[in-house]
Amino acid sequence: MNGGRHLAKGSPKPALPDDGVFRLHSMRFCPYAHRAHLVLNAKNIPHHTIYINLKEKPEWLTEFSPLGKVPALQLPKEEGYPALIESLIIAEYLDEKYPEVPLFPIDPLKKAQDKILIERFNSVISVMNKVFLGGSDAAPDALTEISKGLDIFEKELSSRGTPYFGGDKPGMLDYMIWPWYERSAMLKYLLPEKYELDKERFSKLIAWRDLMINDPAVKGHYVDGETHAKYMKARRENAHDYDMLL
Amino acid sequence: MNGGRHLAKGSPKPALPDDGVFRLHSMRFCPYAHRAHLVLNAKNIPHHTIYINLKEKPEWLTEFSPLGKVPALQLPKEEGYPALIESLIIAEYLDEKYPEVPLFPIDPLKKAQDKILIERFNSVISVMNKVFLGGSDAAPDALTEISKGLDIFEKELSSRGTPYFGGDKPGMLDYMIWPWYERSAMLKYLLPEKYELDKERFSKLIAWRDLMINDPAVKGHYVDGETHAKYMKARRENAHDYDMLL
Repeated sequence: MNGGRHLAKGSPKPALPDDGVFRLHSMRFCPYAHRAHLVLNAKNIPHHTIYINLKEKPEWLTEFSPLGKVPALQLPKEEGYPALIESLIIAEYLDEKYPEVPLFPIDPLKKAQDKILIERFNSVISVMNKVFLGGSDAAPDALTEISKGLDIFEKELSSRGTPYFGGDKPGMLDYMIWPWYERSAMLKYLLPEKYELDKERFSKLIAWRDLMINDPAVKGHYVDGETHAKYMKARRENAHDYDMLL
Repeated sequence: MNGGRHLAKGSPKPALPDDGVFRLHSMRFCPYAHRAHLVLNAKNIPHHTIYINLKEKPEWLTEFSPLGKVPALQLPKEEGYPALIESLIIAEYLDEKYPEVPLFPIDPLKKAQDKILIERFNSVISVMNKVFLGGSDAAPDALTEISKGLDIFEKELSSRGTPYFGGDKPGMLDYMIWPWYERSAMLKYLLPEKYELDKERFSKLIAWRDLMINDPAVKGHYVDGETHAKYMKARRENAHDYDMLL
């Protein structure tokens, strides 16, 4: 929509065809919105993407997202054109509504265990965010913390003995943690010590990454580490270059 | 278990019968553990409760709960005696595994919408916690914020036109927000201004509370506002009187 340009304050609401197709309100560099893109891609669900300038939000955003956040997924086929927010809620909704390509395990226990891992990944997310925004000075032990958080996932992949957390193909856990894993590649460009994950300590995760990068759903929304770093460096200067990929 | 006494550092792991029954690790005044009690009660699922002293945790707690948190639900019937953590993950697991008494709506959209409301209730939780722990001085606009947060739920009950959020009986949304609603009754005892919810502004929620208090699942774990306040006042002095109900 709008050529992928991020709509800002003052932008008219985009005129979209009355085609009943999902409308995903997103921001190109938002890792939470990234989750919604991955699930929609993995399930081959047609959708329009409406990119939002989160610094100068269009006035009509709160019609779809009461707190003005992305992702917000509007469902034009449902009565009243409701919209869903929160990346994990959107992901699970799509998994229940479109079970043809199941992403969560069917077994309730395995599903709950994968959700716990997604929850535990939040500790990696919060440290990564500090480093992305402030460099290693912002969190002196950050790289140690990130590695300790990722140890859990390395060990999990090892004990599952499968190439993906989801088995022979990516499942919900793979897609829910991927946005930050993809962004971890920018640490090399953001930190003076050119940080990369230890190849021995994280051998399974690195093999997993090499597979994930070639997954069609991931490819459909992929940005390399250098580009993520470029966006983040500008953001650190409070210059949100939302449209830098256009 | 152990007469309801909270087990502390140094306590041996409780000897439980090998009966395949769920083991809920809880703390009597923890609102998140309260959620798990409500779901187990509502579904009439037999379980042992192991109360944990969260200030001086028993050494074996991390076997069931890697971060040492409650609730942690151990599943002795499953291979490897796995345990689940995180109140919402436990609640949804139980709802999927024991569908005889369904708590979430069956329709994926309605379910997602209820989850969004549970998520939005977090803003009420965070302000309530500030007031519980520090009084109205700790958050000057707290009472206004709590009321603004509850407006969403008053409006929702009104638009649903049913006595409970779940319809004619309590559903998952009712049970997931109840622990804090129950605790809001302590504001009257904690604050000098004897705070109570405005009877006109929150007429639906107050009628809902009167029904909820008589729900068997709620009754099974209910504590009145004065008692909650007594626990909280001691906690403010760093005296965790976990066993005060015994």
